Order: sequence, then structure tokens, then C-alpha cells
Amino acid sequence: MFRAILFDAYGTLFDVHSVTSLAEQLYPGQGAALSQLWRERQIDYSRIRTMSGQYRPFYEITDDALTFACARLGLPLSAEQRRRLMAQYACLSPFPENLPALKALKALGLPLAILSNGTPAMLDIAVKSAGMAGLFDHLLSTHAVQCYKTAPEAYQLGPDTFDAPAKDLLFVSSNGWDACGATWFGYTTFWVNRAGQPPEELGVVPSASGSSLNDLVAFVRARQAGGKA
Amino acid sequence: MFRAILFDAYGTLFDVHSVTSLAEQLYPGQGAALSQLWRERQIDYSRIRTMSGQYRPFYEITDDALTFACARLGLPLSAEQRRRLMAQYACLSPFPENLPALKALKALGLPLAILSNGTPAMLDIAVKSAGMAGLFDHLLSTHAVQCYKTAPEAYQLGPDTFDAPAKDLLFVSSNGWDACGATWFGYTTFWVNRAGQPPEELGVVPSASGSSLNDLVAFVRARQAGGKA
Repeated sequence: MFRAILFDAYGTLFDVHSVTSLAEQLYPGQGAALSQLWRERQIDYSRIRTMSGQYRPFYEITDDALTFACARLGLPLSAEQRRRLMAQYACLSPFPENLPALKALKALGLPLAILSNGTPAMLDIAVKSAGMAGLFDHLLSTHAVQCYKTAPEAYQLGPDTFDAPAKDLLFVSSNGWDACGATWFGYTTFWVNRAGQPPEELGVVPSASGSSLNDLVAFVRARQAGGKA
Repeated sequence: MFRAILFDAYGTLFDVHSVTSLAEQLYPGQGAALSQLWRERQIDYSRIRTMSGQYRPFYEITDDALTFACARLGLPLSAEQRRRLMAQYACLSPFPENLPALKALKALGLPLAILSNGTPAMLDIAVKSAGMAGLFDHLLSTHAVQCYKTAPEAYQLGPDTFDAPAKDLLFVSSNGWDACGATWFGYTTFWVNRAGQPPEELGVVPSASGSSLNDLVAFVRARQAGGKA
């Protein structure tokens, strides 16, 4: 069986597009466009800065991405609007099935952790506001290694923390590129393909996939039953 | 004065969206969406593979990105459709002002080069089909270092080729992230902001910018006049 399960945070546990309703309230008719471009640029900046060795904390690049997205869409961004959007980002909604699914996994006796690009402070707030306090044994932030996934140094936090080879750890992400990066690194991986996306064409396939964390629970239970058989 | 001028290829010299008309012919009503998603995924894959140390040549990731983009948009992709789109990508249209602008820069006595993610074979065909043969002293492909911009190893090809510090070389790109990456690396940079985009929020600003290669010619002439004064 797996020694532990590690979860990506943004998009996997927390719905990054849950800022859309506030964005729509602030910018009628543009909420979805802002939410999407904000997220795209946030990921872009994490990659560009990692490739160039120009790390800045995820909170800052999230703020930078918001600045760009508003400028690109021609939306004004007052200090108050920025404060409200960033505060909303700090307390993203969890996907509805996540809390019971995490509790079910915890009940199987498996250590759970988050391995995320978010800063420790961001992860701490997000976990508490989602009612997930106490479910995770570790909140691992790539801030510790000053780079972002999919860099190997970022994924290495899992094996280092659990003193186990990556293949004995299950890494879960709803981001196809993250599931692929973790598979390259050596994890056993589960892709939560919430949106029914086609697979990323990266020449690597996650170990398993499903459409929600409920499918993950079924996958882990089947493995556990198989391991004991 | 600058010791040489280095150009990004895709988006800067060659219009990556010039495949749109063929895409529109093959998939009526979806040409622009396919062209855009294809380009986005191509760049994503270059970054993810660089971060993960999983280099594959640009021709392959361009093909992979096409596969993904068609699947995501629900478009069929026959072997013949793939062949035609990839062939079109090999012979992208140059932006209209580029050929006279490059000739004007060449007439100033400056060595010109391309520094691109494209493979040597892709660059060779693109330059010839655009009528630019003989204008460049070097076609530098990041294939030589098995990674993609904005990795420092990729930009290092310029100083190595011209035996000059990066600040004495002018790097030109229409991709804001590329202009920023080259500025971080140490080049003097010119951002060809064709689409009037807001600046990338990366905490670094290109040395100069303009809306076309004509503005670049004016910038270089002014520098040359200043240098001689």
C-alpha cells in the first residue's frame, strides 16, 4: 500500500475559480474572463520564474498575475478591489466532495499531506477556512526550495518528508501537467480530471485517473484491499 | 554600439497565427481558437519539459500541442490534416515590415542572428520560405542545449556565439515573457509589443520597446548615432 497521499492544493482541493463570483460582482460580465486569465498568468509566472531562477513567493506572483489580468482586460483595480480579490483567493471554496473524501482516506489510516506551490501562510489559511484543519499531517510548500512544480526539487519534498521512495507515495492533482510532472518524477499518481479534459500530450500517463476525489477514495480502497489479499 | 542583434523567431519574425487561415479552412468557425490553443500549449509544453528535464525537440512538442488542441476543441485530426497544419507551421508568414527592417539593420553593418526554441531544421525552412536567406549570420537553436527559453542555458548561446557579454548584444522578441527572461539574463532587450499588450508583471522591464520592427530600426539608428556622437 501507499505510505502516504500527497495532494496538490489549487484546483485539486480548492476551487481557484471560486473567485469568479466576487470578480463578477466587481466587474459585471467579466468575472469568468478575469478568473481564467488570472489563473493562467499565475501559472505562467510560476514557470517563467522557476526556469529563470527568479523565484518570488506564490502570494506575490498571484498578486502580479491579478495586476496583469486586469490591465489586459482593461479593468480598473483599486487598492480595495485588489484587497478583496486577494482575500477571496486566500479562502477559496473546497470542491464539495473533498471534505468527506479526505475524511474517508484519513479513516483508512493513511497519512495525508499537501504539496503545493502556495506559501505556508496561504496553505494554512486555505486549509483552515475550508474546514480541513487536522486532516493533514504535513502542509508542504515549495517555498522551502524556492522553485515551483514541475521542478524535481519541488516534488522531492514528498520523499524527503515521508522518508519513502516516490513510487510508494500517491500524488493527487487535478492539473494534468502536475500529474504528468509528478509521474516523471517517480510518484504513483492520480489525475482528478474534473473537467473531462483530454490527456496532456507529454509522453507520460498518470498511474490512474478519475473525475473527483470520490474516485480517488475508490482507487485507494481497491489498492488497500488488493494489498491485503 | 551593439555587437550583434539576436531575434526570437516565432511571433517576432514569423506570425504563428498565420496558420489560422488553413485552420479555418479545415475547421470552419474554429480556426482562431485552434491557432491560439495550439500556440498556448506549445509554449506550456516547452516550459513544463524544461522544468522537468524532459526535453523533446520543438517540432515534436508543436505536434503534441496540435494533438491536444484538437482533442480539447473536439476537432478530428486525420493524418492528412496533421500533415497540412504542420507543413503550414513550417512556412509561417513573416510580419510585413520584417524583411525591409532586417535589410535596413543589416545595412548598418550589424551581425544578425536568430535565437529560437525551434529546431535547426525548422529555422532553416522558416528563414528560406520567408525570403530571409543570407540575412542572418547565425541561426541559434536551443536544441543545442536541450532546453527552452527562459532557461539561462538557452540565452547563453548568444554570448557564446558572439564572444561578447550579453549587455553588448541586443535581444529582440515580441513575446513579453521572452523579453523579460532575456533582460534577467543580462541582454539589452527590445520588446516588439505588436498587440499593445500590458507589460508582463515579472518585476523586470525590457530596455526598450516599440510596436513593430520599424521601431526597432529607429531605436538602433538612434543608438548608433549616439554612439558616434
